[in-house]
Amino acid sequence: MTRPALQVALDYTVLNPALDAARRLAGHVDIIEAGTLLCFACGMDAVRALRADHPGRTLVADLKVADAGETLAELAFDAGASWMTVICAAPLATMERALEVAKARGGDIQIELFGNWTLDDAREWYRLGLRQAIFHRGRDAQAAGQTWGQKDLDQLKALSDIGLEMSVTGGISPADLPLFRDISAKVFIAGRALYGAADPITAAATFQDAISAIWGE
Amino acid sequence: MTRPALQVALDYTVLNPALDAARRLAGHVDIIEAGTLLCFACGMDAVRALRADHPGRTLVADLKVADAGETLAELAFDAGASWMTVICAAPLATMERALEVAKARGGDIQIELFGNWTLDDAREWYRLGLRQAIFHRGRDAQAAGQTWGQKDLDQLKALSDIGLEMSVTGGISPADLPLFRDISAKVFIAGRALYGAADPITAAATFQDAISAIWGE
Repeated sequence: MTRPALQVALDYTVLNPALDAARRLAGHVDIIEAGTLLCFACGMDAVRALRADHPGRTLVADLKVADAGETLAELAFDAGASWMTVICAAPLATMERALEVAKARGGDIQIELFGNWTLDDAREWYRLGLRQAIFHRGRDAQAAGQTWGQKDLDQLKALSDIGLEMSVTGGISPADLPLFRDISAKVFIAGRALYGAADPITAAATFQDAISAIWGE
Repeated sequence: MTRPALQVALDYTVLNPALDAARRLAGHVDIIEAGTLLCFACGMDAVRALRADHPGRTLVADLKVADAGETLAELAFDAGASWMTVICAAPLATMERALEVAKARGGDIQIELFGNWTLDDAREWYRLGLRQAIFHRGRDAQAAGQTWGQKDLDQLKALSDIGLEMSVTGGISPADLPLFRDISAKVFIAGRALYGAADPITAAATFQDAISAIWGE
């Protein structure tokens, strides 16, 4: 199994601190994400600025697209995104159109899982050509006390078995990583656990060491 | 039943044409919406600029929030939004937090319906204090040939009966309005059917006349 990547989600409402955090962490993470919050605060300027600062890097625009898949994909990929997220509640037509734009530009689409979805939905996404999904323990769900449980892990395993490569996010700590040993984990996403740490570089290194300890260098 | 309002959804990717369209149509519609596309293209500058141009007007920020309800609501309402949308796939905690911020500022939250949701979900939203939902025949679904059907109308009626005031959108024409006679229709939303018309003001007047013909002045 390929070693999972570490992604920093920049959930800022102001651009410059987000750019500073990305510059500080760029040598210590694999993927940079312009969070939904940052994209709504600053528009595609956020994606353009991150792309200018990190030309060769995988850059995610976390738009959670629900409609207008083609136009939003053009917006995100023109701004420099490598991957864009689409919410699982979107119509299949939205996913298809976003994926077409992504593929034409060498990019990819990730289905972000929220609310009511089924494994039949996931099989349909796979059939459409989608290969990535994001399993999300939401910020508000975390605050409400929901933790990683067997149900999460069973769902992750079932999605992996369908053939989807999983990004996992939502209050993950390095100590949680062994939980995900048996799934097709492509990316672990952390936000404030990285850039909000007293020492962000050490925080990222601790994550990377924990990934290496399970999946190898 | 209160006369439904007419809302123009500004689905632009560039700010100035959106502001021009809003100025042109402001006297002929009731509500102005900063579309998801415009908000992702330009960030909250779009909401701020529309608020500056239309100080007393109901202004919707169509963010389709899925997570981080409190922070995104602060962003939208600080920028001048009157109402903000949350996607139905969001956790209840996200809806609750967004609603708290909205209520504290005299605003409101609208649940935007996409994908898999149930009437039990809708009852739960109502129980949380939510009173508005948006029934959405998506742009991509329209392009894929889906039309208004009995199933849509039955769902709208069931949501109305729960107590939700409905906004209806997705390729609505004035000729469609009689379909919605028996539901609690609060708002009809149109985008390019208004600002993309050869004569936007006449297009808006035709909508308003059709609303008046059914619901009165």
